[in-house]
This record gives sequence, structure tokens and C-alpha cells, in this order.
Amino acid sequence: MTVTTPRGFRATGVAAGLKSSGASDVALIVNDGPDSTAAGVFTGNRIKAAPVLWSQQVLKGGVVRAVVLNSGGANACTGSQGFRDTHSTAEHTAAVLRGGARPALVGAGDVAVCSTGLIGELLPMDRLLAGVSAAAKGLSADGGEAAARAIMTTDTVAKNAQVAGDGWSVGGMAKGAGMLAPALATMLVVLTTDAVADNETLDMALREATRVTFDRIDADGCMSTNDTVLLLASGASDVQPTLPELTAAVTAVCHDLAQQLIADAEGATKHITIEVRGAASEADAVTVGRTVARNNLVKTALFGNDPNWGRILAAVGTTTAAFEPDRVDVAVNGVWVCRGGAAAADRSAVDLTGRDVTITVHLHEAEMSATIWTTDLSHAYVHENSAYST
Amino acid sequence: MTVTTPRGFRATGVAAGLKSSGASDVALIVNDGPDSTAAGVFTGNRIKAAPVLWSQQVLKGGVVRAVVLNSGGANACTGSQGFRDTHSTAEHTAAVLRGGARPALVGAGDVAVCSTGLIGELLPMDRLLAGVSAAAKGLSADGGEAAARAIMTTDTVAKNAQVAGDGWSVGGMAKGAGMLAPALATMLVVLTTDAVADNETLDMALREATRVTFDRIDADGCMSTNDTVLLLASGASDVQPTLPELTAAVTAVCHDLAQQLIADAEGATKHITIEVRGAASEADAVTVGRTVARNNLVKTALFGNDPNWGRILAAVGTTTAAFEPDRVDVAVNGVWVCRGGAAAADRSAVDLTGRDVTITVHLHEAEMSATIWTTDLSHAYVHENSAYST
Repeated sequence: MTVTTPRGFRATGVAAGLKSSGASDVALIVNDGPDSTAAGVFTGNRIKAAPVLWSQQVLKGGVVRAVVLNSGGANACTGSQGFRDTHSTAEHTAAVLRGGARPALVGAGDVAVCSTGLIGELLPMDRLLAGVSAAAKGLSADGGEAAARAIMTTDTVAKNAQVAGDGWSVGGMAKGAGMLAPALATMLVVLTTDAVADNETLDMALREATRVTFDRIDADGCMSTNDTVLLLASGASDVQPTLPELTAAVTAVCHDLAQQLIADAEGATKHITIEVRGAASEADAVTVGRTVARNNLVKTALFGNDPNWGRILAAVGTTTAAFEPDRVDVAVNGVWVCRGGAAAADRSAVDLTGRDVTITVHLHEAEMSATIWTTDLSHAYVHENSAYST
Repeated sequence: MTVTTPRGFRATGVAAGLKSSGASDVALIVNDGPDSTAAGVFTGNRIKAAPVLWSQQVLKGGVVRAVVLNSGGANACTGSQGFRDTHSTAEHTAAVLRGGARPALVGAGDVAVCSTGLIGELLPMDRLLAGVSAAAKGLSADGGEAAARAIMTTDTVAKNAQVAGDGWSVGGMAKGAGMLAPALATMLVVLTTDAVADNETLDMALREATRVTFDRIDADGCMSTNDTVLLLASGASDVQPTLPELTAAVTAVCHDLAQQLIADAEGATKHITIEVRGAASEADAVTVGRTVARNNLVKTALFGNDPNWGRILAAVGTTTAAFEPDRVDVAVNGVWVCRGGAAAADRSAVDLTGRDVTITVHLHEAEMSATIWTTDLSHAYVHENSAYST
């Protein structure tokens, strides 16, 4: 059920004192091979944290033997010192791993780095490096759960997932009380597989998987400086799945983790699925879904158990998607409260007392569709995010 | 200080029973001339309320002799019946005004209609038309204040403004506990002047004025189906100001009203000014300012008196504006907490205890700038907008 479920991986998590709570805050994942292929996707934010800039370079090298992750500090907007700190972290990780039995040869350029926490503050490097040393000693083939716990920030639960192939599997862990296009609480994801796959295959599988999972969750429309999704392959199963097989498994793990992220989003009281149907293109469907997902008046209405389809329609109207205002239908939890752009079924027929809400928007243009997952906007969201750093 | 301050206008507001509170809810403004030139700008939302579709046609006709406005119902997403209702309202208004002494000839096509309130419900036409009849009888040259009160929804105060020219003036009223790009509470604005100005001049003055005032306030990023800003000229002063003179006066009134809207925005505890400097273009500056204004993590941080410049920088990073991440400076209330994309002055030096907050973002690309005004995201916002219709 974790990143150490696939063969060839060891992991652990330790408390290095980066978090004032004393909870674990440094995670280490090592790929013992025989392969060390990898792929990664990163935040679209142009303000990228030092570890993102570093890890993008590591991925270009095509070999990832280890991933070191820390909570308790994002190392974002920290200037050149921040980048030197990330470099030092990778150097130190490589050095302590070289001291172990396996893998024989690890260079800093083979070590991806992920950080999460407050923006704009330098990491306490003495504690972090000591934590990395401790983590290297604690690596184990069942350390995935400990690693997942060490990357939590405002998360209330550790997030793990696993899908089995025929003789191979994909495991994963995630942190984030938000999404891609995500909260500054940041989304970090590490996926592992013991399948045999080259870098190009991994890249295609990962991009297709994230496109329909992490890219379609949106808790508050805020994109982090640190988002990272890594996929590491050890080849330890000696099985080479086809690209569709690998893509399906990676997508399933990403979907599972994405839903766990939305379920644990800061302050959320609703788990909202927005289905857009009848769109002229998939891009139109995504745009409409995301626009509805980000609309604060829709989000507050759902927090108030109010099936306010007028706010949904008004949000749709701000997009450039192809649609005719007098042909749009809207359903809330299966009740078509709006047909042809006007009131239809009685809104009192909508039951919003449960946590799960499904909004369906039918544009009646063509046959394309997309689904976006989001949350409501609650008092708890305001509370958590107004009190985060103070 | 109101729409009846300029000569040539009469107005009033009456209670027609559209609001369950019994407060006044129908306003009427009549231009007694001698001129009846006008200009208007309307919501960019593609889902337009029936009165917006109607009033756009009236403006194309080039003559506006009266504006009838109602609160207690937006008449948006109401299909063909909603449009017939707006038409009937204009017809009835014209008929009752023809019954009076002035103006001699009023057709339905000379009557603009504005509505605000809940989306998706038909108006109680019997009450509305009776209210219009009563309003026509109550018209007076000092009825501007009553008209402004009759269009309030979640507004806590009526909003009026006036600027004097040399022998002429511009008056105005507004409702809205949001903005252009506005809350579904909707922004309605009627501006009047006794200057002599043709339709083209009025249009140029109004578009330039709204571009830098109403278009630059953004309380929650939500664009209404009903936003309308009308400018009516009576020519009663017999003075023809230059275009720059007229534009300056209209802009000043719009600025005054826009600031009143932000000050009264739903649940706001902060009045936030976002200055973007050093941009490569004015469009870039507006984009950056608006993106920061709409970021829920920035808005909640300010609600919590937290000068979280990292969230501001992360919001800037999601735009396509020209900037280098390591050259951006950010000040909060004059303290440059971020220089060159990294921490600078101690954030504890920032005093956020007051209601007014100024965020300055310097992109260091060129010399263009823009200012956006917004509000914080508070518990009261969530409360008001989750309880609005239930």
C-alpha cells in the first residue's frame, strides 16, 4: 500500500526538528534497482522553489536513485542561498548513501529533492542534514508508511496507494491539503514501480495520468511553488508492461491519491465532483469545470447546503467555452434544477446534507466531457489559512 | 450628492413588496431633458440577465428617458418569460410617464431596466408594475437618495456621489456589496449629468472612467449576470465640457462609488489596495494585481493580519506577465518584506492592525503600473454567502 510495496525500494521517515511539533519531517526513498529510470512533473508556477529547480535538472539527467523530502519549510523564494541549500542536501544524501552497501554509486545529480512548508524562510541546514544521515541508517523495505507520515503538513492523515499489475505493481504516497493548481500547503507525490520501463515510457505514462487526476483537482485555485510528482522505476520485477498497462496502473494510483487529497483538503466539509458534459472540446469541459470549482460564491453556497444553480450558471458564463446560454442544463446531486438556462426541477428536491456533492453541467454543444474535483469554502478554510503562519 | 443633483433629473424609490423586509425596492429615474443622450457598459458575463439584454438594445437606440430599477430579484436565468417581464416593465414605465406632464413622449424603447437580487426566479410582476406606478407619482428633483436606497441588497449603506464642473455636474448612485467582475449581489450604477454631450462623447468618457475604477475593483472574482453602469445626460446646464473635462468628472464619481462598493463589500474587514509597478504593460500590471486580489490564500492571510509575502509572490507566479522571479519586490504597508524574490525586511515590522492595507508589487520590467482594489476573505464573507438564499 506504500512506495515500498513495489520491489527494489527502501524508505523511512525521521524527526529532524524542522517541525516545532517534534513530528517526523524528513523522508528518504531509495531505488535499489536494478534500474533507476524516472519521470517527473512539476508546478506550473513561474515562482519555483529551489528543490523544484534542482529536481527538474536531476530528471533531465535521466537517473534518480533517491528522493529526499522534507516538511517544515518549502525553501521557496529563498534566493541563491536556498538553491545552495538544496544542492547541499542532495550532496549529503548521496554521500551518506555511498557509505551504505547499496546502491554502489550515487551522485548528487541522481538525488531529487522535495520540500514543503512555509515560503520565504531558509531551512535549518544542520538539523536537516543530520536528519538525512539518520534517515539513511533507518531505510527499510517496509518504510513507506513512515516516509508518507514525514511529509505531512496540514494533512490530517498520511496518504498511500497501490495498484497491482501482473507480477509488478505501482505504489505511491502524497501530501497536500490542497491540489495541483494547489494550496501553498503544496502537493508532493512520489510514485514507485518495480516494472521495467525506460524514461520515455515513464514520462508518457505519468503525464497522461496526472492530466486526468492531479491536474483536475482544485481545492482553492492557488498554485504552489513546490508541487512535484515523481515516478521511479526499479525494474526489480523483471516484467515490462505495455504503455497502456503502465498508464492505467499509474493513473489508478494517481486517482486514488488525488481523491485522498481532496478528501483531506483544508477546512472542507464537502467533496464535490463537477462533471461537464456535452462540451465542444475536452479543453472547454476542463475550463468550465475548473471555473465552477474556483467560484467562491458556488463554494460558499454548497457549504451552506444551498443548491444555488444560478451561481453555477453565472460562473459558466465567465468562460470562453462554446455554449449557448439558453441551452445549458445544470443538475445538483442528480436533480436537474436548471434546463435551458432557466429554473426546472424544484431546488428543494436536492439533498445536500451528505459530504459528497455532484454537480453536472451539460453544455449541449458536442460530446466531450471532463470531471473536476473540488471542495467547499468553509469557516474552517478561512480559519486554517488565516492562522497558518501566525 | 445624488443622481438628482445635476439639473434635469427627477427620481424616487418606493416599497413594492419585492423584498420580504418591506424595505423600498423599486427606483425610478427620469431625464426631463432637454437632451436624452446616454451611454452604458454592461457585464462581460455571457449569461446576461433579461434587463441587461433589454438595456443593451435601448442604448443602441441612443435615447434614454428613464431608468427603472428593482431589487428583490435579478430576473436572470429566467428564459423567455423573464425577457417578456422586462419588456412589460419598460412598457408600463413608458405608459405611466406619458400620463404625466413631462417628458411628453416616452416609448418603452427609451426606458432602461436594471434588476438585482436572486438569480433564477421570476419577478412578481403585479407588485413590480404597481410599484412603478407609485414611483412615477412620487418623482421629485430631490429623490436621488430615495432611489439609491431602493436598489440596496446586501449593501449596508446607500451609495451616492457627485462632482461639480464649471456650471455643470455629475451625480451618481450605486449598489453592490461586490464589484465589477462582481459578486452576484451585482453592481448597478446610474450616473447623471446636466452637461451637454452627445452619445459618442458620453460613451468615450464612461468607458475610460469604468476602465480604471469599476473594472479594477474585485471583491471575490465573481462576475454578475446583471452588472450595469449607465450615464445619462440632460443638457440642462447648457454647458458643453470638453471630453477630458467630462471624462475627469465621470471618473471621479466612478472612483468615489467604486471605493464605497469595496468599503461595503460583503464580510470584508480589510480595504486592500494592490499597486503593481514596473510592469512591461498596463495589461500586465492589471493581470498581476487582479490575480493577487483573487487569491484566497492571500485574502485569508490578510484577514489574519499576516503579511504573508510568499503567498503574494506565488500568486504573481501564476500569471503570464513579464517578470523575472529573482527581481520581484513586494511591500506590505510600505515595508519591503521581499526584495529580489526573497525575504528582505522583517515581516514583524508590518502593521496590519488597521482596516486599510496596501500591497505593492514591483516587477522591475518597465514603467507601467495599475492599481486594483479588493477585500479580504473573512468568516463573515463565508457566512453571508452561504446563508444568502436559504
